[in-house]
Amino acid sequence: MSYLRKCVSDVGGYVPGEQPVGGGYVRLNTNENPYPPSPRVIEALQTAVGPAITRYPQPTADRLRDKIAQVYGFAQEQIIVTNGMDELLGLLVRTFVEPDGTVLLTNPTYVLYETIVRLYGASTVSHELEADLSLPESIFNTADGRLMFLSRPNSPTGNMFDKERLAKLASGFDGVVAVDEAYVDFAEDNCLDLARENENVIVMRTFSKSFSLAGLRIGFGVANREIVAGLMKVKDSYNVNVLSQAAAIAALDDYEYMVECAGKVKRTRDRLTAELVSLGFDVPPSQANFVLATPDKYPLAARDVYLRLKERKILVRFLDVRGLDNSVRITVGTDEETDQLLAALKDLS
Amino acid sequence: MSYLRKCVSDVGGYVPGEQPVGGGYVRLNTNENPYPPSPRVIEALQTAVGPAITRYPQPTADRLRDKIAQVYGFAQEQIIVTNGMDELLGLLVRTFVEPDGTVLLTNPTYVLYETIVRLYGASTVSHELEADLSLPESIFNTADGRLMFLSRPNSPTGNMFDKERLAKLASGFDGVVAVDEAYVDFAEDNCLDLARENENVIVMRTFSKSFSLAGLRIGFGVANREIVAGLMKVKDSYNVNVLSQAAAIAALDDYEYMVECAGKVKRTRDRLTAELVSLGFDVPPSQANFVLATPDKYPLAARDVYLRLKERKILVRFLDVRGLDNSVRITVGTDEETDQLLAALKDLS
Repeated sequence: MSYLRKCVSDVGGYVPGEQPVGGGYVRLNTNENPYPPSPRVIEALQTAVGPAITRYPQPTADRLRDKIAQVYGFAQEQIIVTNGMDELLGLLVRTFVEPDGTVLLTNPTYVLYETIVRLYGASTVSHELEADLSLPESIFNTADGRLMFLSRPNSPTGNMFDKERLAKLASGFDGVVAVDEAYVDFAEDNCLDLARENENVIVMRTFSKSFSLAGLRIGFGVANREIVAGLMKVKDSYNVNVLSQAAAIAALDDYEYMVECAGKVKRTRDRLTAELVSLGFDVPPSQANFVLATPDKYPLAARDVYLRLKERKILVRFLDVRGLDNSVRITVGTDEETDQLLAALKDLS
Repeated sequence: MSYLRKCVSDVGGYVPGEQPVGGGYVRLNTNENPYPPSPRVIEALQTAVGPAITRYPQPTADRLRDKIAQVYGFAQEQIIVTNGMDELLGLLVRTFVEPDGTVLLTNPTYVLYETIVRLYGASTVSHELEADLSLPESIFNTADGRLMFLSRPNSPTGNMFDKERLAKLASGFDGVVAVDEAYVDFAEDNCLDLARENENVIVMRTFSKSFSLAGLRIGFGVANREIVAGLMKVKDSYNVNVLSQAAAIAALDDYEYMVECAGKVKRTRDRLTAELVSLGFDVPPSQANFVLATPDKYPLAARDVYLRLKERKILVRFLDVRGLDNSVRITVGTDEETDQLLAALKDLS
């Protein structure tokens, strides 16, 4: 017999980007930062490794919350720290959505949102983006839904939704609007002020991308105190380990280092975009650390681009998702990695 | 307006043990190990701290699962690794229990089980232990319930349920039996064979107690492949960070060190128990790294024991739970810490 809940049996799980065994790969498939974390993070970790790991972490990560509060201009009580942003996504569903409830999404967007909602047993309603990847009118006319996930910059398209339209959407929505800013440090602006001004907006961040700490699993959300208090009640008591807390504080202490690395990524991204376009790909302007490339005039289909690059030990992400069955998502690597990718694509064309 | 689910508003959150600011406390309130982790863990962490933290962890923690499989005699596919055992408790509920479902518990038991179930919106049915703290007949006659949490050694009573009775309970139960063995390395036997032989038994372990790694958040479960596959689908993709995975492998590589530390704790526990009894406390024989002490002939009530010890910078846990409103739970510390505790209790009597 099966003991599983029916919704768990029914849903295909989320498939993370492949991690090849053995070295020598250029890994442009999981949107990590090509630059290492700040030397101050490494120092802080070396200091933190010791007998203190015998003790439970501080449950609410107060030192880290104080630091986030100071850097981003919020009160400590407006911040929740989580085991990667993934944990925060699940917490939002479990805190605000009844099991028979509905979560609003756009399409395309980060596919994990739908997986999380369906594993919980709730439903999603997806609103197709306009042809120019902007927010559609339909999403403004939604009566139901207790939660909405929006990714800005959007994944996997890389574009930014117009902020004024997003603000209007939030003020008219009768539920929580969760704005996923995983990639925002590579973009031109952010929505922190919407979290400050709206009782129903939570802005979500991660240390996995711009801060180069994907391996340590640190995410956070900023919102009004009531939203944060609800999430804090539902989260596991000791959700963020002592080393990750120490690393994140050190990373914020060297904020300028992150800005510098993000600047390098942005310059490489803009060069990558131009070169891909000249090779015959359609590439919407990206404000993230990845680009979405559709082989418009390029001679191979996206699946073949993925497979042929993999033969050459270059990994990109083939996204076989609804409405995007002929695109690859390419992480912006170092200039050297980008040169390798472009040389391979030229060679294959 | 409130955006929270009603069940979240209604439930009081779990309250972790207090963590005083400032030093000088003897901390016997959160059941950590008084001895540091193996030197091999510290070495492994020092090696792991480097640019590799830029990359996402291996999602299914396969190297660690291989190690656990080898040490405990299971197949890799029978193991799930989680961000502390806390994460596994929540996963079990979300994977096997419908939102209107029922989870069976004993009373007393670890209070977090009930908190997790109620935050999810499901119900609990608690079966009162017999006066000798054994499993009651009533729990054998339960028709409903998709999940049962049993803690062995039981928290906060420290005793072991009879294993044959537990096996009989599992074979007659039409749902998943989750046996919490957080404290089992301080006990005389374990239930791993029940997980091997029964399709509905999962045994849960943690590195927080016997392995001295509470700060790193590593738990795991062993069960049949179907149960593990369901849990793996529901867990966050990257739930255990790279450093914790490396530390846990090193801890298992030095299994003998853990056994030695646990041996010291057990000897101190038995001395502590005898001394508390001679001071007038009722103390059920414990097979964990804590004892439950009820001031039977001792002149102060449990709440006052807690408060007066705290004035002396000794922290124990006052458990104001159903059926246990006059007991303190005392973690077994070093011999020196135990001497300080006993001297204070003598002084206060």
